[in-house]
Amino acid sequence: MSLRKLTFVTGNKNKLREMQKLLSGIVDLDNRSVDLEEIQGTTQEVAIAKCRQAAAIINGPVITEDVGLGFNAMKGLPGPYIKWFLKELKPEGLYKMLAGFEDKSGFAVCTIAYCEGPGHEPVLLEGINHGTIVEPRGPDSFGWDPVFMPNGFDKTYAELPSEIKNTCSHRFLAVEKLKVFLSELQ
Amino acid sequence: MSLRKLTFVTGNKNKLREMQKLLSGIVDLDNRSVDLEEIQGTTQEVAIAKCRQAAAIINGPVITEDVGLGFNAMKGLPGPYIKWFLKELKPEGLYKMLAGFEDKSGFAVCTIAYCEGPGHEPVLLEGINHGTIVEPRGPDSFGWDPVFMPNGFDKTYAELPSEIKNTCSHRFLAVEKLKVFLSELQ
Repeated sequence: MSLRKLTFVTGNKNKLREMQKLLSGIVDLDNRSVDLEEIQGTTQEVAIAKCRQAAAIINGPVITEDVGLGFNAMKGLPGPYIKWFLKELKPEGLYKMLAGFEDKSGFAVCTIAYCEGPGHEPVLLEGINHGTIVEPRGPDSFGWDPVFMPNGFDKTYAELPSEIKNTCSHRFLAVEKLKVFLSELQ
Repeated sequence: MSLRKLTFVTGNKNKLREMQKLLSGIVDLDNRSVDLEEIQGTTQEVAIAKCRQAAAIINGPVITEDVGLGFNAMKGLPGPYIKWFLKELKPEGLYKMLAGFEDKSGFAVCTIAYCEGPGHEPVLLEGINHGTIVEPRGPDSFGWDPVFMPNGFDKTYAELPSEIKNTCSHRFLAVEKLKVFLSELQ
């Protein structure tokens, strides 16, 4: 099949612009902001259900994107529920959740889901970045970035210059996989 | 309206038997075990979405039941997500999550949702029991019972004799509200 047009279902204009830039030359990306229900389950189950729902509403090929932050001491939780914990506890509280656990390692995961249309099974493109959960450092400007220090760096996501973060992040890794996947669809 | 028959959507036979006993003389309770998706959201949003789904599948009046355990230091989280944390962390790990927080208070909540049928708005009957999250004590036989010590007692749910637990629990409080609600429907 040849895919010319793809809808990114997101309400986030920055994510849209960035994704359009990354996928230019591969596919025309337009956008719809639709309220999608998120289910409880594993990161993968959450992403699949959401993308399936988006494809049914848009009635055509779509991508959706989910991010999570897992703590290894909690076997990957909060993971897909991280946004609720961030909202209530702020970055400080996320770090405090691990006070009773020796293992401070964790991972950031970005799951991009692609679905061809209603009735089709979504395909997942996952980017995972391993690191450590640390006391918040750097500007408190974006989500849980201040508490996540990726392996190989002595700075948190919040402290890293964006041109460095953007080439090592969970999101970058997922987008790289998406580019390969979409190229092979053409 | 006069309600003679009501379906309790649960896969748990013990819960069914107990509920049948509690509601005998008020309503005939039958049972269906249906896989219901649980959404992410507040305790109330989760219960409403689940009950609405159940009423659509059963095509008639239904009740569903949800329980949660919230930590006040985490503004009520894990709350509706407690089962995922219990599964991965066991009672020991739930207690450890609060190691970094001074406030060890929490609350157990049981949300029974009633929906008349497809297209009707679910009604929530909530029972909340406040208490403290403690190091696990008592038999590890039921869920997070070993870490929850209700206010006014020096024993955890797991340590309390069932005849005492059953007359003070979050579930008892919700069922009492349900009984009043159903009686007034007759």
